[in-house]
Amino acid sequence: MSLLVVGSVAFDAIETPFGKTDKIVGGAASYISLCASYFTKNVNLVGVVGDDFPHEFISHLNNHGVDTEGLQIKKGEKSFFWSGKYHTDMNSRDTLITELNVLGDFDPIIPDSYQNCQYLMLGNLTPKVQQTVIERLTTRPKLIVMDTMNFWMEIAMDDLKKTLSMVDVLTINDEEARQLSGEYSLVKAAVKIQEMGPKYLIIKKGENGALLFHGKEVFFAPALPLEEVFDPTGAGDTFAGGFIGYLAKTDDISFENMKNAVIYGSAMASFCVEKFGTERLVDLNENVLSQRIEVFKKLVHFNLTETNS
Amino acid sequence: MSLLVVGSVAFDAIETPFGKTDKIVGGAASYISLCASYFTKNVNLVGVVGDDFPHEFISHLNNHGVDTEGLQIKKGEKSFFWSGKYHTDMNSRDTLITELNVLGDFDPIIPDSYQNCQYLMLGNLTPKVQQTVIERLTTRPKLIVMDTMNFWMEIAMDDLKKTLSMVDVLTINDEEARQLSGEYSLVKAAVKIQEMGPKYLIIKKGENGALLFHGKEVFFAPALPLEEVFDPTGAGDTFAGGFIGYLAKTDDISFENMKNAVIYGSAMASFCVEKFGTERLVDLNENVLSQRIEVFKKLVHFNLTETNS
Repeated sequence: MSLLVVGSVAFDAIETPFGKTDKIVGGAASYISLCASYFTKNVNLVGVVGDDFPHEFISHLNNHGVDTEGLQIKKGEKSFFWSGKYHTDMNSRDTLITELNVLGDFDPIIPDSYQNCQYLMLGNLTPKVQQTVIERLTTRPKLIVMDTMNFWMEIAMDDLKKTLSMVDVLTINDEEARQLSGEYSLVKAAVKIQEMGPKYLIIKKGENGALLFHGKEVFFAPALPLEEVFDPTGAGDTFAGGFIGYLAKTDDISFENMKNAVIYGSAMASFCVEKFGTERLVDLNENVLSQRIEVFKKLVHFNLTETNS
Repeated sequence: MSLLVVGSVAFDAIETPFGKTDKIVGGAASYISLCASYFTKNVNLVGVVGDDFPHEFISHLNNHGVDTEGLQIKKGEKSFFWSGKYHTDMNSRDTLITELNVLGDFDPIIPDSYQNCQYLMLGNLTPKVQQTVIERLTTRPKLIVMDTMNFWMEIAMDDLKKTLSMVDVLTINDEEARQLSGEYSLVKAAVKIQEMGPKYLIIKKGENGALLFHGKEVFFAPALPLEEVFDPTGAGDTFAGGFIGYLAKTDDISFENMKNAVIYGSAMASFCVEKFGTERLVDLNENVLSQRIEVFKKLVHFNLTETNS
């Protein structure tokens, strides 16, 4: 099924306890579309870059089957740039630089050929832009998934709530879920957030896995215990890419199948953090991915046939 | 199979965001033996209290099938007392008072009738006392599990290492695993700690579940997402009680069965935190426990028969 991915395509400069990079390619839509391309070859990208952005990466996306007709290239302008430094625990980071550049007045134009997409993944962006995308689609997709972050809760809560009321699935981290709902308990937070619109909620807990909520149903997927988390940048977007890619491929949006999608998202994220930026995501293959899914199965599998007596 | 539990039997005074208690019964061995009694009626307790300790609780343990011949009652002395206050996140706490009292010179005397136990659970105590217990057993138990804490790593690391070399399973929390091994990655920490002696390692991560390591094998059990964590005191000991109780009941110490034991430990811990102290643990029954195990199964169950194409 066709998938539309909207989000930032950008430069990142990253410092972790293991090393640092110059400007490398990043951005939510880069991770999401690259990752989703392992599941479906019908991935359409809407985003914006400056003419400083490397053509090689765009060709690379195209070679992966990602259509970039919707990627605007602004002449004489610069791409979005983020720079950050991770603490030892890798769960927290300081933002050193944020240059919005072309993202400051991003107008998400949807090419005609992208209309009638069945799946829509809205990467983290201004809630207003996310909303505009939904409004510009002539038919509502079968499933709309959005990501967001605490920043928008602080400066654009009304817009965010409006956008939330229009989507099916929200992906968010644990601290953001607490901030959005005003509830410390994630179970209580999930109830409140579902009342805001999304009938499915994924709470990402980094190295502590992810929770999928839907009404009274809850599913938990662990993160893979890794010897080394080299660079967590993009892990959440990679998760989202695996999640929506798997759903678009299987075209089944039941809660049961969403569980599988969460496992695929977690598996993809476990690759992402093994190297800097998108490096580990460019040359995966079916075999490597299947093996990792088996590791996830084994990680949580137990065989309790009888219960206590 | 017979189970010997050694550890503190004590008073706690607890303050959480939800309320506070006066002195209530606590202590590792109280939680462990109470909890294990739901699995096997062959639980023997070694510990020490002062004559300020309530006979009602001892009778209560006896009614649960716990043998307290090994619980020394010191005339004219006071029981161990701990008081603590939890922060809003419930994952961190401040110790307000620690009065060792009878625990200061605890000599763990093993009644003859406790000899030849197949399973030994050493609750958190001075490593020297834990070691003495092992040395006083005429035959080595089939499985020795020990708990410990960061405090002993700071003041008695040599003793701790000696005790570690004598046991089969260590239960420890994530921060303690990092401190003990000097490794931030839990996967690397697990390798180093297994080299110290215990061939099985359980790393407890509170609301983020627990990891069981054995050689290259790893198993993850989630914690149950709860609406409210009322009081986390004793959750780790309750986990240990469910773990060792299940193993003693099934008398199967394979890695496969240890996974089941970890799930039972997690289920018991999920009850523990619902009320203050041991309150929720005194009136469980088979039905309630079976239902909770089903919730755990459902929480992590996914049905991926095919992998990516």
